[in-house]
Amino acid sequence: MQLPTFSDILAAHELIKSYIHRTPVLTSKSINALMGCELFFKCENFQKVGAFKFRGATNAVFSLSDTEAGSGVGTHSSGNHAAALALAARIRGIKAHIVMPSNAPDVKKIAVAGYGANITFCEPTLQAREETLKKLAEEIGLTIVHPYNNFKVICGQGTAALELLDEVKNLEIMLCPVGGGGLLSGTAISTKSILPSCKVMAAEPKNADDAYRSFRDGFIHPSIHPQTIADGLLTSLGELNFAVIRQYVDEILTVSEASIIASMRMIWERMKIIIEPSSAVPLAVIMENKDKFAGLKIGIILSGGNVDLARLPFQG
Amino acid sequence: MQLPTFSDILAAHELIKSYIHRTPVLTSKSINALMGCELFFKCENFQKVGAFKFRGATNAVFSLSDTEAGSGVGTHSSGNHAAALALAARIRGIKAHIVMPSNAPDVKKIAVAGYGANITFCEPTLQAREETLKKLAEEIGLTIVHPYNNFKVICGQGTAALELLDEVKNLEIMLCPVGGGGLLSGTAISTKSILPSCKVMAAEPKNADDAYRSFRDGFIHPSIHPQTIADGLLTSLGELNFAVIRQYVDEILTVSEASIIASMRMIWERMKIIIEPSSAVPLAVIMENKDKFAGLKIGIILSGGNVDLARLPFQG
Repeated sequence: MQLPTFSDILAAHELIKSYIHRTPVLTSKSINALMGCELFFKCENFQKVGAFKFRGATNAVFSLSDTEAGSGVGTHSSGNHAAALALAARIRGIKAHIVMPSNAPDVKKIAVAGYGANITFCEPTLQAREETLKKLAEEIGLTIVHPYNNFKVICGQGTAALELLDEVKNLEIMLCPVGGGGLLSGTAISTKSILPSCKVMAAEPKNADDAYRSFRDGFIHPSIHPQTIADGLLTSLGELNFAVIRQYVDEILTVSEASIIASMRMIWERMKIIIEPSSAVPLAVIMENKDKFAGLKIGIILSGGNVDLARLPFQG
Repeated sequence: MQLPTFSDILAAHELIKSYIHRTPVLTSKSINALMGCELFFKCENFQKVGAFKFRGATNAVFSLSDTEAGSGVGTHSSGNHAAALALAARIRGIKAHIVMPSNAPDVKKIAVAGYGANITFCEPTLQAREETLKKLAEEIGLTIVHPYNNFKVICGQGTAALELLDEVKNLEIMLCPVGGGGLLSGTAISTKSILPSCKVMAAEPKNADDAYRSFRDGFIHPSIHPQTIADGLLTSLGELNFAVIRQYVDEILTVSEASIIASMRMIWERMKIIIEPSSAVPLAVIMENKDKFAGLKIGIILSGGNVDLARLPFQG
């Protein structure tokens, strides 16, 4: 299995940088004071389609040859990756085919359709989604772009940490959420290549701790019936992601749902920015482990800002 | 009645610029596409204490002589101005006395106390608040800083438009919300002085349209029992503010509550930033009057981002 290298990430950045937003790095004096450390938030919630996923999807789409691109791209997803792939394809002027479960929320169907993608509905099971996509791929000849277990996607996701480390020097810890491992694997390669002394840590909900257990045990545990508000972190690790993670990641820490919600609320209230629950998991890790992080200079990737405003977890 | 001039605003900016944040100007391609015009949002939701009020309060506090400052400052308010005055006073190292109704929400009491202010509670009527403050002023000799009907406060508020016009050239319209008129009067002086061709418009909730009626009729209508979600815009115009508004403002437009909520939601969802309902009123005006604003280059002051997350107006 060929793992992406730092030069692959640099090449990805060259390829995608005119299409993506160079998102801002924000700080908050009051959160620093409350946490007792110095935090630098890379705001991928301000990325196009509202999530870092646009980086990886754009790298995958623009890495295709003209012939490959002519047959389009496809994925099965109802989340940020689907929107990201749809927009990246539209920018290149090719077709994106998105397989979605029939019960996907209307707002997601509308978002993906709004980017001009073809949507194919199927039964709401993983098996139906995979089979429907595979059938489409055989019929049309499209290139399947997996949301995270994909070389080019990993390289694209690694560009967020690349920009953060370019802007903020001497970080001691790089912290990002882990679901399938696309963001974490890209982040880990960039960070260890640019600044080997910087520890790479991942944050995961306790209620979806398959990456924590996989990292500990040395093989991939599937994510079975995870119950967490961090709906971007439900999936199992990909094989390519896991190989990178084993090589480059220092530690995976898990947190409670209550801490995730408290962290999300702190970022909304203190920074006045909207992040989705998955993005709140790294700060939640710090909230639960203040001693461990005391006095350190820490980069955090805020992965996205797509949240259903009609279903927020804040109570009085 | 001496009205503030542009040179007073320039002097205010010199005085306060090292204490305030120079807030960013954000744009949104998707909102521009939906509205059919080009919008530049001056993000005072990212200002210290989460609102433009910190500009005026800081100018008032730092304009005092050492002798005046020694006796402290005071106001009656439970909102953004109270927090702003408290923080400005703390930065200067003087005492702030805030008169608050006994039924003010705990979160506001805690915020003001957190900035080190003395809080005096009183009955929850305007009369009790004014009398309590007056009594305090006589006893202690403090300087009362009115939230908007105050020369120095107006000059401070005018610095937001000053920065916006410095950053974005050739705006055709400047649009801001109007409550007591502090932000609007400062904004109007800055805008008409820097760019006389730029129209200054104010946005007001239909359910609190006292400024609209005052502007139309040429005298101040009091704001009586306004019922609007835009809780920063409940107050009547100040006399000094009204004099400036009559001289410099081109038009006041009112909007429905439904449009204010839709506008707030659009900014939260598309820009991933948190604004309070009062800040959503200008975009609501554009939503209701697309033809009027079509194709124009428009500056909008987003006045603040302090909102109770446990009581949001978004439904599914």
